[in-house]
Amino acid sequence: MTLDDFSQFARRRVDHYLTQNLDQYVPANHLQEAMAYSLFNGGKRVRPMLTYATASLFDDINELTDACAAAIESIHAYSLIHDDLPAMDDDDLRRGKPTCHIQYNEATAILAGDALQTFAFELLSQSHHTNASLKLQLIQELIHASGRHGMVTGQMIDLTNVGHDINQQALQQMHQHKTGALIRASVRMGAISVGMLDRNNLTQLDRYANAIGLAFQVQDDIIDITSDTNTLGKNQFSDEAANKPTYPKLLGLEGAQEFAQTLHQQAIDAIKPFGDPAQPLVELANYIIGRNH
Amino acid sequence: MTLDDFSQFARRRVDHYLTQNLDQYVPANHLQEAMAYSLFNGGKRVRPMLTYATASLFDDINELTDACAAAIESIHAYSLIHDDLPAMDDDDLRRGKPTCHIQYNEATAILAGDALQTFAFELLSQSHHTNASLKLQLIQELIHASGRHGMVTGQMIDLTNVGHDINQQALQQMHQHKTGALIRASVRMGAISVGMLDRNNLTQLDRYANAIGLAFQVQDDIIDITSDTNTLGKNQFSDEAANKPTYPKLLGLEGAQEFAQTLHQQAIDAIKPFGDPAQPLVELANYIIGRNH
Repeated sequence: MTLDDFSQFARRRVDHYLTQNLDQYVPANHLQEAMAYSLFNGGKRVRPMLTYATASLFDDINELTDACAAAIESIHAYSLIHDDLPAMDDDDLRRGKPTCHIQYNEATAILAGDALQTFAFELLSQSHHTNASLKLQLIQELIHASGRHGMVTGQMIDLTNVGHDINQQALQQMHQHKTGALIRASVRMGAISVGMLDRNNLTQLDRYANAIGLAFQVQDDIIDITSDTNTLGKNQFSDEAANKPTYPKLLGLEGAQEFAQTLHQQAIDAIKPFGDPAQPLVELANYIIGRNH
Repeated sequence: MTLDDFSQFARRRVDHYLTQNLDQYVPANHLQEAMAYSLFNGGKRVRPMLTYATASLFDDINELTDACAAAIESIHAYSLIHDDLPAMDDDDLRRGKPTCHIQYNEATAILAGDALQTFAFELLSQSHHTNASLKLQLIQELIHASGRHGMVTGQMIDLTNVGHDINQQALQQMHQHKTGALIRASVRMGAISVGMLDRNNLTQLDRYANAIGLAFQVQDDIIDITSDTNTLGKNQFSDEAANKPTYPKLLGLEGAQEFAQTLHQQAIDAIKPFGDPAQPLVELANYIIGRNH
């Protein structure tokens, strides 16, 4: 399967699962509508791709894998909605479309984000899978990645860093929480969803995920200054406008590009032991370094 | 035990459990601080009292009961933080103290609310209780009460109602979601935490919870116009200022007071079958009708 085929497979599968579970009557239609608007906004579904690719390393993908991919995507969507709010990054545009608070209003965006967080845990807890302790373990993985030990703390560090000179270690700590934790969860939860709980395997997968998670951010910083607004679907130089610390600022553009290559190699090395079945994960790592938007 | 004693018992117990679990190192101190500020702001702990009182109807309170009380209080705290934001109710004062976004800033308040939601599920999923399927069931109860099927939808309906004339049925639907669902969960989760899963008992408890949940709101509307700002700890006439539909507007002040009494009686009738051990729940119902702030 080419990466394009795999990307389409993952998108179709996670979108179907999300739609099936979101489409239940709730009295506040606008809330449901804003949730769907942000869930289906043309995102690249990188995290679900990671989840499916990792699960299929060990066994056939099952419905619990779908629940993981969908739950992670719901957390991702909620974080983007809240991150775009005027009091946070104040972004009007996301993937070429109005952000949630522009399309609806701020109050609706706050509530849609809140409800998407709950929805993520709803998906995991209501999966048809019968192993309660496996579901509980997955819920714990997602909590650890998304709450005060992970993503939200990363966003808080990010806000605190604006306008400050910070070193590479501090920048890395921020990214490891803000985006790295959820990318690591995408990989780990894929494995756990098919019953892979072996500590050595999970450690190798963590190494892979940590490397591509950071590479993803370094690449993000690079394309913010090398791609134009049309390609990005958001405003070029938005990091600089927001006075945010970035890898090109710390290491120079070439230094940042070299660092991305090093991380790429670390990722490839980490999954070598899994042999040919890890090919989709290799291609995902290639994609993350090669992308220009 | 008098209601005052019971209130102190519940507060001590839930506050201890919250503190124990919140006090772990996370790199973003400000986030943790804002979470604690909102969790320990002098709230009445009505929901934990309901959880403990219901649990003790059936068995000894255990650590899972603590986790339920603490989780529900975290959801309640997160909803108040987001509800107070400028884009929502725009309140500066809560229980006589600056609201979270006034004390810190808007971005911190949004993130503290987000993290408190995750923290609620963290508490339930990491309880020492060994029965995974019971923990999962409690997580599902809290999801149903707080997300798009419950509280968040109630807040969305509330926002949509501002400035509109609505009838009593629509007002009731709003309250049943916005505050009723979490009050019902406080009661149900107390019972489930000690293994009480009997459908008939849970139905009786639902009746009690639905009645006091609505009575709580009717009383809230009443004291908004009969108590002064000092007693309330928030601004008097804030509902009217926000142009919100209320029971006194719909039924007149006397009509609203009569309705509160009817609901009170319904609550008492619903728990009569449980006999003397239900005395704390009776006193809680009395308190809800009798309170002036």
